[in-house]
Amino acid sequence: MTQTPFHVVFAIFDQITQLDFTGPAQFLCRMPGAQVHVASATLDPVVTDVGFAIVPTTTFADCPQADLLCVPGGLGVAPALSDAQLINFVRNQASEAQWVTSVCTGAFILGRAGLLQGRRATTHWGYTGLLPMVGAVREDARTVFDGNVVTAGGVTSGIDFALTIIAELHGEDVARSLQLNFEYDPAPPFAGGTPATSPKPIVAMMRERFYDARAAEMEAALNATA
Amino acid sequence: MTQTPFHVVFAIFDQITQLDFTGPAQFLCRMPGAQVHVASATLDPVVTDVGFAIVPTTTFADCPQADLLCVPGGLGVAPALSDAQLINFVRNQASEAQWVTSVCTGAFILGRAGLLQGRRATTHWGYTGLLPMVGAVREDARTVFDGNVVTAGGVTSGIDFALTIIAELHGEDVARSLQLNFEYDPAPPFAGGTPATSPKPIVAMMRERFYDARAAEMEAALNATA
Repeated sequence: MTQTPFHVVFAIFDQITQLDFTGPAQFLCRMPGAQVHVASATLDPVVTDVGFAIVPTTTFADCPQADLLCVPGGLGVAPALSDAQLINFVRNQASEAQWVTSVCTGAFILGRAGLLQGRRATTHWGYTGLLPMVGAVREDARTVFDGNVVTAGGVTSGIDFALTIIAELHGEDVARSLQLNFEYDPAPPFAGGTPATSPKPIVAMMRERFYDARAAEMEAALNATA
Repeated sequence: MTQTPFHVVFAIFDQITQLDFTGPAQFLCRMPGAQVHVASATLDPVVTDVGFAIVPTTTFADCPQADLLCVPGGLGVAPALSDAQLINFVRNQASEAQWVTSVCTGAFILGRAGLLQGRRATTHWGYTGLLPMVGAVREDARTVFDGNVVTAGGVTSGIDFALTIIAELHGEDVARSLQLNFEYDPAPPFAGGTPATSPKPIVAMMRERFYDARAAEMEAALNATA
């Protein structure tokens, strides 16, 4: 079902939320036959939201065709929506990829490239209301499969998404062995992590202090002509 | 209780398991007042286990004193045990740090620096049997606090460790808000992730194919004179 090597391509850009990329990259890189490529416009280091930079392994021009394409999200997505080089790379890669995927607000990059039209999709909980702007059918879930398009929710969802893809491609035993490899038996100190499971005052505070303004910025960027 | 800025210092080296570092870095960087520093011997990019490189933000020589020091693990730990520059940096930083921490096999770097003597500690499940070699009292747990020394288990444990530290320093509401921020409501596709919770044949296969040899390498590196 899968050829070797299986090219996993992450498209990265300034101010990605680095865990959107580094979480799934950790799991997908150990998938049998996988080769991970980290592509950007140039080989210059890409600055992440944490402050440190990541050195791409290839450029958009030189990147091999992805078998699995993954676009992470972050505060860099709103400006990246008008980055024609990035959007064209994603659109071109997606046309031949076996799997077209995103984590967090990376979904809007897929959307801008026209890849979510009529698809069920998810994104970070703070932005799910904007999914119809790119033609997607909003679904509030941790991982959403619609055909060969797989979208994951916010940030840490990317880890569960990666394991789900690994199970799909290589079966349960391989996924379980990588879960053991990375000691993925999560034990968050508190219940929560979604608007439905977190205390209401915390959800309200996070919307007020952060997500309402950020969602408005994203909406403006989506409304702007690319 | 905490001053501003609160310096979070990660000591990185070639062939770290990048999620050991990038997981907790994602959460700790949003802790109120936190400044994350990524320190290495030089500013040259540090190659991770996934293949991409990370650009340090500072050198061992220029790094500010850590309030929280964190050492990640990975296959690079065995060779790093004889890296005097790294070990001295960790020892010196630890002497003034409020918290001295590790993720995964980063525990053995703390141990080599003499920081685990008589302490309860944990590491990746594949290596816990070696903890007494650095004077530590082995504990099989996801996060172990002993005084100001906090050790986390393998890889993804670093996320739970970070949230636990955040709750300790800033209270439950801040930890819960970051959990919501990063949509950390984990849903692994399978139960498992530790030798106790994974199917026995998978544990046996992973030991045979990987961890027995790696643990022997680590043991040899711990036995070698630094």
